[in-house]
Amino acid sequence: LREKAIRHRDTIMVGRTHGVHAEPMTFGLKLLVWYAELGRHEKRLAEAVENLRVGKLSGAVGTLTHLPMEVEERTLERLGLSAAPVSTQVVQRDRHAHLVTTLALIGASLEKFSTEIRNLQRTEIREVQEPFRRGQKGSSAMPHKRNPILCERVTGLARLLRAYVLPALENVALWHERDISHSSVERVIIPDAFFALDYALDKMTGVLADLVVDEERMEQNLESTGGLVYSQKILLALTQRLGSREKAYAAVQEAGRHVWEEGGHLRDWLMKDPTVTKELTREEIDGLMNPRDYLRSVEDIFRRVLGEEDSA
Amino acid sequence: LREKAIRHRDTIMVGRTHGVHAEPMTFGLKLLVWYAELGRHEKRLAEAVENLRVGKLSGAVGTLTHLPMEVEERTLERLGLSAAPVSTQVVQRDRHAHLVTTLALIGASLEKFSTEIRNLQRTEIREVQEPFRRGQKGSSAMPHKRNPILCERVTGLARLLRAYVLPALENVALWHERDISHSSVERVIIPDAFFALDYALDKMTGVLADLVVDEERMEQNLESTGGLVYSQKILLALTQRLGSREKAYAAVQEAGRHVWEEGGHLRDWLMKDPTVTKELTREEIDGLMNPRDYLRSVEDIFRRVLGEEDSA
Amino acid sequence: LREKAIRHRDTIMVGRTHGVHAEPMTFGLKLLVWYAELGRHEKRLAEAVENLRVGKLSGAVGTLTHLPMEVEERTLERLGLSAAPVSTQVVQRDRHAHLVTTLALIGASLEKFSTEIRNLQRTEIREVQEPFRRGQKGSSAMPHKRNPILCERVTGLARLLRAYVLPALENVALWHERDISHSSVERVIIPDAFFALDYALDKMTGVLADLVVDEERMEQNLESTGGLVYSQKILLALTQRLGSREKAYAAVQEAGRHVWEEGGHLRDWLMKDPTVTKELTREEIDGLMNPRDYLRSVEDIFRRVLGEEDSA
Amino acid sequence: LREKAIRHRDTIMVGRTHGVHAEPMTFGLKLLVWYAELGRHEKRLAEAVENLRVGKLSGAVGTLTHLPMEVEERTLERLGLSAAPVSTQVVQRDRHAHLVTTLALIGASLEKFSTEIRNLQRTEIREVQEPFRRGQKGSSAMPHKRNPILCERVTGLARLLRAYVLPALENVALWHERDISHSSVERVIIPDAFFALDYALDKMTGVLADLVVDEERMEQNLESTGGLVYSQKILLALTQRLGSREKAYAAVQEAGRHVWEEGGHLRDWLMKDPTVTKELTREEIDGLMNPRDYLRSVEDIFRRVLGEEDSA
Repeated sequence: LREKAIRHRDTIMVGRTHGVHAEPMTFGLKLLVWYAELGRHEKRLAEAVENLRVGKLSGAVGTLTHLPMEVEERTLERLGLSAAPVSTQVVQRDRHAHLVTTLALIGASLEKFSTEIRNLQRTEIREVQEPFRRGQKGSSAMPHKRNPILCERVTGLARLLRAYVLPALENVALWHERDISHSSVERVIIPDAFFALDYALDKMTGVLADLVVDEERMEQNLESTGGLVYSQKILLALTQRLGSREKAYAAVQEAGRHVWEEGGHLRDWLMKDPTVTKELTREEIDGLMNPRDYLRSVEDIFRRVLGEEDSA
Repeated sequence: LREKAIRHRDTIMVGRTHGVHAEPMTFGLKLLVWYAELGRHEKRLAEAVENLRVGKLSGAVGTLTHLPMEVEERTLERLGLSAAPVSTQVVQRDRHAHLVTTLALIGASLEKFSTEIRNLQRTEIREVQEPFRRGQKGSSAMPHKRNPILCERVTGLARLLRAYVLPALENVALWHERDISHSSVERVIIPDAFFALDYALDKMTGVLADLVVDEERMEQNLESTGGLVYSQKILLALTQRLGSREKAYAAVQEAGRHVWEEGGHLRDWLMKDPTVTKELTREEIDGLMNPRDYLRSVEDIFRRVLGEEDSA
Repeated sequence: LREKAIRHRDTIMVGRTHGVHAEPMTFGLKLLVWYAELGRHEKRLAEAVENLRVGKLSGAVGTLTHLPMEVEERTLERLGLSAAPVSTQVVQRDRHAHLVTTLALIGASLEKFSTEIRNLQRTEIREVQEPFRRGQKGSSAMPHKRNPILCERVTGLARLLRAYVLPALENVALWHERDISHSSVERVIIPDAFFALDYALDKMTGVLADLVVDEERMEQNLESTGGLVYSQKILLALTQRLGSREKAYAAVQEAGRHVWEEGGHLRDWLMKDPTVTKELTREEIDGLMNPRDYLRSVEDIFRRVLGEEDSA
Repeated sequence: LREKAIRHRDTIMVGRTHGVHAEPMTFGLKLLVWYAELGRHEKRLAEAVENLRVGKLSGAVGTLTHLPMEVEERTLERLGLSAAPVSTQVVQRDRHAHLVTTLALIGASLEKFSTEIRNLQRTEIREVQEPFRRGQKGSSAMPHKRNPILCERVTGLARLLRAYVLPALENVALWHERDISHSSVERVIIPDAFFALDYALDKMTGVLADLVVDEERMEQNLESTGGLVYSQKILLALTQRLGSREKAYAAVQEAGRHVWEEGGHLRDWLMKDPTVTKELTREEIDGLMNPRDYLRSVEDIFRRVLGEEDSA
């Protein structure tokens, strides 16, 4: 992800909110968000694993009656574990629940990545595409299809991972010094959660490694909405000239409405409005509609995430 | 939904699987799927409510010691309830859990509808649009925006409804003749689930009532993929002529690959392949690319769902 | 359960609320509550299964273009299914979610039964006991142990079943005419939910079939609290005589406090309070402390659940 | 909890596994387990909060176009936040989900504590009791009742907290640079989770502060099972003498069976078995049945958790 983010640091595409074109951004910035998120998960996972790196040999109810503490500690040390400072018949299950919630958190991010790729692979968008081997069949009935099936699979696995959180949390409240209700649960959810996450990570790694990125299409999509994506830049400039955000907003919104409903370019509709033309020339408006302006801080953001040398 | 489904029974649009164009269908058919689903929910809800239409006056542990059974039954009858045939200190909580799972099931369908509308309102698709009042602000910063915020809100509420299922199910296993652990849960989830669902239904009803449907855009999108959506029809015809599904598949897939990668129309790419031209003429191919053919059974499907008279 | 309920219809035991002795009841009544609950589940399961007894051959997006409706219906009929009246590429997932919620509801009841048996098998209570084979080892370290491990296992399995509800509900909102995110989920949760429930039902059936019921111990426990379980009967009688529920409550609560804190019998503490002795004789009080009185309506309740002939 | 744990460091009670008497332990050790668990939660909560102590002013899609990075950082600093190194229109929701899972983990431990108190307050056990104000009514119908209603309420609230994890995890996968589906969820679950946890912590703090601990009853319960709780000590001694764990196990299990089924004391039943009497005298057996032996390491365990000075 880091490598891909750096490679696409300046690959301009439209940023979308609510599924609707918002403002220009870069594909690398999108990947950088993911990269930073995985960094947080790496830290969370390390903490959760550290929490679980304990054992106990303290006997049937945790009193360390039949074995000296030193034997407990030295034996566990040999296994690469430390002794739980205090325990019942078992290591307390908040430690296991912490792990499972962490796996589900990672799964939720994989769901974010895979949902994003699925959305960007839509026929009408087609800015990225899951790797598709020559000769692979997308659909047995419809020979033209190329479907983001790996990302869809990962989306489903995130649902499974989420599900395992609940029984893990219910397992914490064992009765007294232990009942064994957690056991039938853990035999299923601990291996299944690891299998599901491992598989999902593996698939997502493969998808990202060979992701097809269509920069031309990104540019086309960005331009497809007749300059609407620059509406905020126009708004800010017009507000400054008019001295009224309200009036500027009304003018830009009205021009935008024309673009949505009748097509054409925002610049042209703006040029039909005297409120605008009194304040801004066609050249000034065109000057505000430059996607490169939106890259102004991208390098700094990369530096903030990756550090000085890595973001080069 | 019924009315809208009937109105758009023949409104042709592209059907999508995996977010990718598949085959022509109609918008009314999509709405009919939803309508039929709500019909199932109506039945489920009636069953769940019927399950809960009971009460009990059977005393502290359910023995009916301090009150004759007749008094229990007559009193509850006055409240429009029947007596739970047997109870503990309380009516058993499987009945309440049944209700909450049913509300969540309805919520899951509302999530399906709202997710669909959000997807169809994407800038690149724009086939439908949530009602947007003249003068309404889509975004404070970007005056051009029209966002499907009601459907996004409904999507979120479905998550909440889903969440309430878990504590409802955990409430079933009360200890002995009752403990009161269910009470703090039910005070929150029962009203909150009803509020959330009521609000979501209300918003969705409003969205559907005034949904903006852009039939022209539907047609444009359908045609935007150069005939790819007819690939199955070509495949079936070519298979019959060639006597080999495998060869036919390879030919249509290859032509489809050209369309994806280089643009142009599927018909034209097919006409460059001798395997195809030996079997099919340009006129035959064009004849297979008629979206109206996909309406063949739509009327029958409507009749199957709505009954004889209603689907007219 | 029906048979066991009938057998123990008059087996007197203490009813408990909040884990605290409340009033006398019978063990058969407890089992009858479970039996009636399973009856509701049987109905729910039948409805859920009926909901799923459909198929579809309506093509890639549900238009029934490439196949006549009659062929769809006849083919599915041969498989014991009916045709989904309308579908997309797949049968809609509310049907599957309905099934999974129903399995989880049944699991929640099994959790109730197993939790109850675990509680009644506690060393201090020991009114019932899971079957324990001669020679079976309860604990490798503590040879005296007999643990309700089957019921604990069932408790855990109910947590698993509950967990599967969430992804089943998330699977409903597939995109457009279908995405395949549900598939990786269903491959896990559908078989695993059935396996878990089948196994849990099997274990619970075995536990109930050979459940050890210690009627003597039930009687001892009932009597162990010095008549406290009759406090409501005394309260009602005293209220009638005194004409003040408040005064009666205070007197009985005070006597009860003595029993809790100092031991002895409620009757004896009541006999030390002139408010009581002015109204009730020792004989009258003793007359109110008859567990048989609490069986008054039990036969009627059985009849209400099992019908006329079956409850004999 | 620390103070209470220290106070009851040597308060002997029976340890229970599977709800069945296992071996002697101390009440302070039980509380120490809880104290150590809360310590882990304190650390987890600090990490989760630190994760969320960020903000962003990076604009509509996170490009920091309309505002210098320095202004973002200084403004957030004034609010006690740091700038998210990279963001979209919003701070990424894995941070919020991390918080909600942490609140649910704490809730799960509160459920453990409250379930334990509920179990220890059962009529047949009665080793601890929730504070009960003089004059408080335990039950309107049964004046003798003292119910652990606060702990039951906390148990229920843990279920709620668990439920909020799911929508928090589902909120992570927002579309593109943000959709607003998370908003309707967060408005409910963030405040409700904090309210529920705050309330539960407050109630649990009150319960623990004034918890009634009946040491006499703890001793009675420990002794109530005729020495069964010492079976492991006998097993170990007998194994050493007999040179066969198998034979020793059979002998102790058989004697234990007599105690369970016929009553009497384990020592007496052992003394009837020649396999035992050949190896152990009555005095030796009695010497093995000293609960004080189980305190051997308790002080060390306290030191391991609390550190040198605090465990005094």
